[in-house]
Amino acid sequence: MTQTIATELTETITKLVLEELSKVGLAPSGEPLKYVPVGVSARHVHVNRAHMDILFGPGSELTKFKDISQPGQFAANEQVTLIGPKGTIEKVRILGPLRKDTQAEVSPSDARKLGVNPPVKQSGVHDGTPGITLVGPKGTVVIERGCIVAERHIHMTPAEASAFGVQNGQKVQVKIEGPRGGIMNEVMIRVRDDFALDMHIDTDDGNAFGLKTGDKVEIITE
Amino acid sequence: MTQTIATELTETITKLVLEELSKVGLAPSGEPLKYVPVGVSARHVHVNRAHMDILFGPGSELTKFKDISQPGQFAANEQVTLIGPKGTIEKVRILGPLRKDTQAEVSPSDARKLGVNPPVKQSGVHDGTPGITLVGPKGTVVIERGCIVAERHIHMTPAEASAFGVQNGQKVQVKIEGPRGGIMNEVMIRVRDDFALDMHIDTDDGNAFGLKTGDKVEIITE
Repeated sequence: MTQTIATELTETITKLVLEELSKVGLAPSGEPLKYVPVGVSARHVHVNRAHMDILFGPGSELTKFKDISQPGQFAANEQVTLIGPKGTIEKVRILGPLRKDTQAEVSPSDARKLGVNPPVKQSGVHDGTPGITLVGPKGTVVIERGCIVAERHIHMTPAEASAFGVQNGQKVQVKIEGPRGGIMNEVMIRVRDDFALDMHIDTDDGNAFGLKTGDKVEIITE
Repeated sequence: MTQTIATELTETITKLVLEELSKVGLAPSGEPLKYVPVGVSARHVHVNRAHMDILFGPGSELTKFKDISQPGQFAANEQVTLIGPKGTIEKVRILGPLRKDTQAEVSPSDARKLGVNPPVKQSGVHDGTPGITLVGPKGTVVIERGCIVAERHIHMTPAEASAFGVQNGQKVQVKIEGPRGGIMNEVMIRVRDDFALDMHIDTDDGNAFGLKTGDKVEIITE
């Protein structure tokens, strides 16, 4: 009798755990994973050491405002103003740590406001991209290139890539439900040991598809 | 010989004409039409007679700024300020002519700025929609409801509906090419004798999908 209750309890707990895992896309076995959480990225910049010195003073360091989804990366307290040929956007947060190249990641609507026409690019790929002006409390930097609209992408570990049945560099589609739902094309899979599972989209995609950070979307690979 | 040249010329011209017609979605025969031009609608309002009196003065009339895609409708010179619980948007154009009910059509990003949470609704359908405040040069109107995110929709004539193989009230998907391409779901077909072929989307969808007014998209009906 006690044994029966224990067995039933075990089955119930197992069922509930499996249901919860399934909800977050962590199917327990067999079928490929499907669902990824979304992170909506507001406009932001990355800066290199030399530009940090100019914008915030020699030897200045980024200070953490809060952690972001990818391990080791953080939103900094430090902010800059972006100036383009037709407009200005204030309070654009820097994401740390410092990088090799300074980069401004804006949404298409930001780009229109600034008066620049950046192509859709993977982070760090700056060929054919326009420049932009960054203004900090201690100085101004004009970059010749590095203003991009970030390519839609999904971060994951090699184990997750295997479970999703996808590879680094593969482009997939992503399906979104709801009255503003649809499919996003050209979503790049980016695999690295230290990545956390997260689909990065900009605020224009977030607004258009009715998505907010933490929502789940479905990867389509056929 | 001359006859041969004339025949070849006719064939060449016919081929070129068909190619051009095909590019704009006007396939000459047989196959259903596929392509529709896009109109990106900025935020705008419609006002009724009573509210026009308050906003612009008793007996005032809308004056034409320019024609818009649908016959008889126009963008007016008259503009209002929209005020929500969290923000204000100035210079919001009125579309004429006057309507039975006052309505504010905003994008999801506008809604966030204003601090309202309007559902996706067909124009004129106001159940469950929030109110908003409209400020004109002569007065202020507070509507209890009528602030919507406009449902994605395509205007067409009955003949065009027949050629596309769709019906009034049907929801279709629309396919968009390019690095920000994808599929929009929940696109309502609206058929009327005096409609001009045009897909209406808001600025958030335009920015997310990289679409501007005049671009062509493909209807998927399977």
